[in-house]
Amino acid sequence: MTLEATVPGTAEEVLARCAELDRFTSLPGRLERVHLSPQHARANAETASWMRRAGLRTWQDAAGNQCGRREGRTPGLPALLLGSHLDTVTDAGSFDGMLGVVMAIAVVERLGDRIDDLPFALEVIGFSDEEGTRFGKALLGSQAVAGTWDPDWWDLRDRDGITLYQAFLDFGLDPRRVRDAARQPEHLVGYLEAHIEQGPLLEAADASLGYVTTIAGARRFRIRLLGEARHAGGTPYERRKDALVGASEAITAIESIGKDSGTIATVGKISVHPGGINVIPGRADFSLDLRGSTDAARDAAWDQIAAMLEAVCEKRSLVLEVSESHRAPAAPCARWLQEAVIAGIESTGEKDPMGIWSRAGHDAMAIAEVTDIGMLFLRCFDGISHHPGEDVRLIDVALGLDAFEQTILAVAAAYEAR
Amino acid sequence: MTLEATVPGTAEEVLARCAELDRFTSLPGRLERVHLSPQHARANAETASWMRRAGLRTWQDAAGNQCGRREGRTPGLPALLLGSHLDTVTDAGSFDGMLGVVMAIAVVERLGDRIDDLPFALEVIGFSDEEGTRFGKALLGSQAVAGTWDPDWWDLRDRDGITLYQAFLDFGLDPRRVRDAARQPEHLVGYLEAHIEQGPLLEAADASLGYVTTIAGARRFRIRLLGEARHAGGTPYERRKDALVGASEAITAIESIGKDSGTIATVGKISVHPGGINVIPGRADFSLDLRGSTDAARDAAWDQIAAMLEAVCEKRSLVLEVSESHRAPAAPCARWLQEAVIAGIESTGEKDPMGIWSRAGHDAMAIAEVTDIGMLFLRCFDGISHHPGEDVRLIDVALGLDAFEQTILAVAAAYEAR
Repeated sequence: MTLEATVPGTAEEVLARCAELDRFTSLPGRLERVHLSPQHARANAETASWMRRAGLRTWQDAAGNQCGRREGRTPGLPALLLGSHLDTVTDAGSFDGMLGVVMAIAVVERLGDRIDDLPFALEVIGFSDEEGTRFGKALLGSQAVAGTWDPDWWDLRDRDGITLYQAFLDFGLDPRRVRDAARQPEHLVGYLEAHIEQGPLLEAADASLGYVTTIAGARRFRIRLLGEARHAGGTPYERRKDALVGASEAITAIESIGKDSGTIATVGKISVHPGGINVIPGRADFSLDLRGSTDAARDAAWDQIAAMLEAVCEKRSLVLEVSESHRAPAAPCARWLQEAVIAGIESTGEKDPMGIWSRAGHDAMAIAEVTDIGMLFLRCFDGISHHPGEDVRLIDVALGLDAFEQTILAVAAAYEAR
Repeated sequence: MTLEATVPGTAEEVLARCAELDRFTSLPGRLERVHLSPQHARANAETASWMRRAGLRTWQDAAGNQCGRREGRTPGLPALLLGSHLDTVTDAGSFDGMLGVVMAIAVVERLGDRIDDLPFALEVIGFSDEEGTRFGKALLGSQAVAGTWDPDWWDLRDRDGITLYQAFLDFGLDPRRVRDAARQPEHLVGYLEAHIEQGPLLEAADASLGYVTTIAGARRFRIRLLGEARHAGGTPYERRKDALVGASEAITAIESIGKDSGTIATVGKISVHPGGINVIPGRADFSLDLRGSTDAARDAAWDQIAAMLEAVCEKRSLVLEVSESHRAPAAPCARWLQEAVIAGIESTGEKDPMGIWSRAGHDAMAIAEVTDIGMLFLRCFDGISHHPGEDVRLIDVALGLDAFEQTILAVAAAYEAR
């Protein structure tokens, strides 16, 4: 299905637009679109053109987020934000983030002139960074909107050594104005995000849609083990301080601690220095992403991991360095917005919508700092995400659009009744 | 001590020249000089100028090795080769390889016109590649000289994707002529190499010098574990195929197998894909370097490791891919050259020279294919090598030069007596 052949506001168009965004990638034949890259600029421009066709007035905010707005009953009312993110991981699928942005635009298109009667403005936002692929720090776009920007982040560097500050300049943004992206609570009604589940629960329950009850907070760490680089041939075992064997022992133990504690601990990155075939690694750096159903469970697992790291390093004469790169508390969805999402799902004929706590983080977590949040989950294929095999069914997108549209009308009714 | 202030042929000059070569590095403040790089070209040029001052006629051969020759009693006699390599690992020390080249030049300088009476020509060679840092394949320079070049190597790529073939062209070499670098056995008397021990044995025995009995052959492997990249948050443990946890389990087990079998197994490189903080690694690639005192011991350890890898992958639903990137049989030093090295060491007053089997590989391993080899080891600081802390004492270099000079005279006597 080509984009030109689709009917505005349909599931077909939504999927065609997701495919269209795949063109903006830094990798031949694979998808990677990172924060403040040339591909990011092109994705923003394309998204803005879709927003305008849906009747939204568009702008790129001071943090590189692509925004659009249509006024409600009277100009200048607080806005109901709809959105998700346009950045991806490396070797990504086509739906994580993008689907939510494109669905929000489609829902605006479907509502059309009915927006003129709403008791709030509608805004759509495509966040510039949720994944943290480029700078190792997630939610940079949504945290700018939430007003929780930390000036320490300017010194974050990408793998080419470019600072976040410089990346803003290169993208044509003025770092000194980043706070202009922040929104005030009194100007917001709430935030709704549609997203693929990124897990297997809806598929297992044979359901198209679900509502989110809370988003588990992740903690992320950078862990460094320092040993001694020596010649692989000449150095007997008893004289080795092999940082990689230490890291390997730790990574295996991290899996065990995660399983035993009911949390989810993942090491997604590792590098060693100097990295010669015949040189004992003198340094190993790896990441840790840790999630739990509650902040307390997650923090208890970290305490166990930290103690294990100390023990491994003690035994192997390695020096341990740990820094926390990200910490987000669990973000509950507002009850009234959960109810609106449930009403939306029920409008599709689903009698008993499934509530899910999100293991994955979302822009909504950051936005929860400034306004109420609600989320609609769509079933995805085999729970696969962050992978080219990520997939979603046309029928689920069609039901999702119906549900999303009805959710907005339910929010309007609840907002007026407050 | 500056280079200009040193006396030709002394240990002071040798150390000053090693320091001089440190200038030719691709990393600011650290040493990395890889095969066919601009730094390699500059190191060759500097070495050639030293060779010429020592009375050698110089040329760069068809494989980028820097060569020099002085005729013996009559022109055109077979040559006794003296040498080592000029390339380094990443973040290297100043002596591994370079010391042997610079000592060989110094010994030629010390012998001076006495070379006119030798029953062979003397040649010095600075090999272009021993470490394999750039193309992941060791001994490229010395294998060209040994005539064991494999055309398959042309397709090897460095980390920027440049093939070995292209690197030859970029360096000004004609790949089609690489076999011109090969030497014929009838034109060679033997090969002698001085090298730091890269181990702790001489230091522990309070000895300056040792002779090598045999060089253990290494086998090197590229190991790939294929799992499935999925979102770190949404994927429960029972659905994960985490390539990095599998690799970590394997790396820990490799250490145990090495220790238990009396071999030396080292994993020096690792990378994962896609490498996102919040993505389960779908692929892990790591290297294995395996050495043993005998080929049989080493191969038995590999069989154990291979079985362990199969078991880990079976358990974790990972796909295993193994390729062997390098295999060198143990290379024994020729008895008559061992005796010449022993005579050289004894000339310094050492009554009972220490024999060592080299755990590290050397150019001599490759050259053993085409002529007899012998090696002189120098004590190094704390066994450290492949690291900026690599160090050697002035007194040991001075004794080493005396021993090396006397070794050549002993080779001449033995050669005439044959």
